[in-house]
Amino acid sequence: MFKLEENKSYSMPVHFGGRDPPAPDSAWYARDFVGLTYTYTTIGDQLANYVPEGFELLRPEIMYGFGHFGKVDFLAGGCYNVITADVPVRFNGKRDRLEGNYNLVTWENLTAPIIGGREENGVPKIYADIQDLHVTPPDYPIPDFFTNASYDGNTFVRMTMSDVKPIEGEQLAAMQANPLTINVFCWRYIPKVNLRGAELSQFILYPQSVEVKSAWEGSGAVEWIKLQPEQNPGQFHIINALAELPIPETAPVSMISGILALKGSQGRVLE
Amino acid sequence: MFKLEENKSYSMPVHFGGRDPPAPDSAWYARDFVGLTYTYTTIGDQLANYVPEGFELLRPEIMYGFGHFGKVDFLAGGCYNVITADVPVRFNGKRDRLEGNYNLVTWENLTAPIIGGREENGVPKIYADIQDLHVTPPDYPIPDFFTNASYDGNTFVRMTMSDVKPIEGEQLAAMQANPLTINVFCWRYIPKVNLRGAELSQFILYPQSVEVKSAWEGSGAVEWIKLQPEQNPGQFHIINALAELPIPETAPVSMISGILALKGSQGRVLE
Amino acid sequence: MFKLEENKSYSMPVHFGGRDPPAPDSAWYARDFVGLTYTYTTIGDQLANYVPEGFELLRPEIMYGFGHFGKVDFLAGGCYNVITADVPVRFNGKRDRLEGNYNLVTWENLTAPIIGGREENGVPKIYADIQDLHVTPPDYPIPDFFTNASYDGNTFVRMTMSDVKPIEGEQLAAMQANPLTINVFCWRYIPKVNLRGAELSQFILYPQSVEVKSAWEGSGAVEWIKLQPEQNPGQFHIINALAELPIPETAPVSMISGILALKGSQGRVLE
Amino acid sequence: MFKLEENKSYSMPVHFGGRDPPAPDSAWYARDFVGLTYTYTTIGDQLANYVPEGFELLRPEIMYGFGHFGKVDFLAGGCYNVITADVPVRFNGKRDRLEGNYNLVTWENLTAPIIGGREENGVPKIYADIQDLHVTPPDYPIPDFFTNASYDGNTFVRMTMSDVKPIEGEQLAAMQANPLTINVFCWRYIPKVNLRGAELSQFILYPQSVEVKSAWEGSGAVEWIKLQPEQNPGQFHIINALAELPIPETAPVSMISGILALKGSQGRVLE
Repeated sequence: MFKLEENKSYSMPVHFGGRDPPAPDSAWYARDFVGLTYTYTTIGDQLANYVPEGFELLRPEIMYGFGHFGKVDFLAGGCYNVITADVPVRFNGKRDRLEGNYNLVTWENLTAPIIGGREENGVPKIYADIQDLHVTPPDYPIPDFFTNASYDGNTFVRMTMSDVKPIEGEQLAAMQANPLTINVFCWRYIPKVNLRGAELSQFILYPQSVEVKSAWEGSGAVEWIKLQPEQNPGQFHIINALAELPIPETAPVSMISGILALKGSQGRVLE
Repeated sequence: MFKLEENKSYSMPVHFGGRDPPAPDSAWYARDFVGLTYTYTTIGDQLANYVPEGFELLRPEIMYGFGHFGKVDFLAGGCYNVITADVPVRFNGKRDRLEGNYNLVTWENLTAPIIGGREENGVPKIYADIQDLHVTPPDYPIPDFFTNASYDGNTFVRMTMSDVKPIEGEQLAAMQANPLTINVFCWRYIPKVNLRGAELSQFILYPQSVEVKSAWEGSGAVEWIKLQPEQNPGQFHIINALAELPIPETAPVSMISGILALKGSQGRVLE
Repeated sequence: MFKLEENKSYSMPVHFGGRDPPAPDSAWYARDFVGLTYTYTTIGDQLANYVPEGFELLRPEIMYGFGHFGKVDFLAGGCYNVITADVPVRFNGKRDRLEGNYNLVTWENLTAPIIGGREENGVPKIYADIQDLHVTPPDYPIPDFFTNASYDGNTFVRMTMSDVKPIEGEQLAAMQANPLTINVFCWRYIPKVNLRGAELSQFILYPQSVEVKSAWEGSGAVEWIKLQPEQNPGQFHIINALAELPIPETAPVSMISGILALKGSQGRVLE
Repeated sequence: MFKLEENKSYSMPVHFGGRDPPAPDSAWYARDFVGLTYTYTTIGDQLANYVPEGFELLRPEIMYGFGHFGKVDFLAGGCYNVITADVPVRFNGKRDRLEGNYNLVTWENLTAPIIGGREENGVPKIYADIQDLHVTPPDYPIPDFFTNASYDGNTFVRMTMSDVKPIEGEQLAAMQANPLTINVFCWRYIPKVNLRGAELSQFILYPQSVEVKSAWEGSGAVEWIKLQPEQNPGQFHIINALAELPIPETAPVSMISGILALKGSQGRVLE
């Protein structure tokens, strides 16, 4: 019969065997990463409805992000795209007092990292069809970059970036000198079998960093499009909540390319 | 700030709000279900390698299944396909002594039920592209029905069914009289954040039943195709393990159509 | 070297060999067909902009259709979905005087029938992601049926059907007694290599018929959503033209299921 | 009613309006192109079965190619992948005597360029799911690069590249100095409506060129996998014909990246 080996790392299905656990200082790499970040000021009281007790909202801001994760180690060089919504917070625990980004939701267009992120790190990942970032050819006036996400053919968010200028010289050198490190906070929640209450509920720190190669800045827009329940039964309430958060029409956008390091196994349960 | 409500059912992301939990006797329905089951005798010792302690192998058999889940309630009438591998077992616990099918692995071609099944019931679901069941037109000699599953374009299993005959009369009436009920057993396993050991590890009972409308029998073949690690980094070890289980070239196949009831919330942690 | 055989039917690539041409009275069958037809009164002058000289508009009407083509012969039992826009016309030629539907555009979610339809019959087929027709479960209030089409994640049309009632008794018997036959008219156009002028330009008759099994009627809505050029570079002008055709908010919808016969090779070039 | 405008370029559907035709010296660009070319010696007599009269086989060689067409102008910056099979030939016509590559077949994973290539230039394009080129991460031994193509989940070709070395210095400078230009020859064939004989049949010159940025060489393998008719009804005869062409297990492979210019409108009908 199958027995767990003590020094192995497992995920479901467990009984086909485990893997060597990651070294303590190891990371998963996306060696061809491009990320866009939109920072919007919104209404703090409304935003706070989606941030659990234990976290303190640092600023009434929501950050929307698009990421292309290319040349991903654990996909044998494959890739996927993500859309994220994060809030700047401080965790005020008994032991831990940390600033970082509380992840409200992460859409990805590939099941394998969705499963891993949810079960290992509590990242609230759900599925969407997410287009690659399109670089508009010269004969199209605007925007410079654009993408969207949809579910079952229902567009629910569009992202564009215009007036793009490269960041150069000392400013770029400074970004390149130190990997940009982020504390991402997530809420790992596994329900009881009867779906009444939690079997497991914990806040988790998920460190991530980016080794920046190039960077750009510009202005951009994120447009959320409300959906009816039948158009996206599992997610409409999330999309509609974000669509109801008031944000300005355009916002500053930063774009970086480089190497992303996902340091899930360097994280821990927050206390 | 967001607070959990006591009488709500949650899944990640939690902080956008919960749902009313399912009534104790409720189920999720796939109102347009078609299922094929292939029953193969194999080598018990080899099969037992994938069945954890606590379960007893009843027969040296592996059951491979294809299912089309159509008109699914929680998808607002959407559908998905599944491929399953199950083993007939008895659970010998302190409290529970039950016969049923231990699920070795379930592939599905839709992320939402994969996430739900893993986190709520411990079903070891993973993603694959699974073709709809094809009914071969009259001018093709064989087979009568066929499908396959692949990952990133790599075919890893083919299923065919031939010599199909409807089950009729008293035999069908008997199948229709009582919903076919199955105890599915799963191993829910959530790792620690550092991927060394389990944060949660439990065997779960997941009752399912089928209200049969029509039924057929025939002969069929399941062909597993080994993959290289880079062709399917997260699953090759599972596929190759199944490919190495010796099975006869053909086996009896049963096909049923009807209404499938997934009674996850009527299950429980086995003890 | 490769030579054409006289009694074979060819398509590109030609040099791998041809097939036996279809018998003169043969057809391609979709043995599991479901079709919805929405009939809208619109502004005749505006509609006429999209109907070429040689055709006469019979009524200021546009018919939007959704079709599920299941158990398709030439796909070995596979399936695809279509969205169509048709106009009732009379062809007034030197030889032919025929009434039928001039096909403005057909979207399909599968390349093989798109290629065949365009090259063999001049059907102006283009690609879209088209959702299966969803039958809404009991706990969703409306609509009864719904679907959409999108391109690169950009929703461009939604179709819904509500207040659905089966057609029964004598009315159904009449529909079943005679296959519903339609003259579809298309414009086959192949450009010169330098894209200045036509190498081939002809109107083609494409007969189709449906053997009706069941039928329903109800009310429904078709909503066209305009797109920007970069969101759908090859099709935005088509979608936006249809979106600008004024139509009432709801219209009568008919739904039929049965066997569809595509009789392309029984068609001819109109003169 | 709709009328054709004289100085416009049209494709089906024609009646929604045309576009300005391309300038005589213009091209479509894939500004982020990566291409692999495998050159295999095979049996000339067998290969000649797939080359039509009018062309002369220059060498008993078949070239298999993979291409990633990124940042494509006519897709507003979108991308697609291609798999090609070409043969080195000389066209011996009444007017034209030209050397180039006769394209046996081209698979692409996007419908829009398939339609355009077939109808405008006679490129025998058909659909397949084609994976992105995977760059294997450091911890996988071999190969360095790999991809595959499949249809309805049935893998039919795998391509790998190993022992990759960059081409540098003078050799690279020479490649960069002159765009690599290729005469691609195609057979444009449009059948009669009754599928007996051709409505249009002509050989077409389709010039293409690549502005090389970087280049690599290595060894590689192309593996064709035969399919049953029902697994790929429209293409199995093509795949099986290629699978039966004997080729060595490995071959030299060249890889280039740069800007691809597709000069379809600079081509012409060969005479």
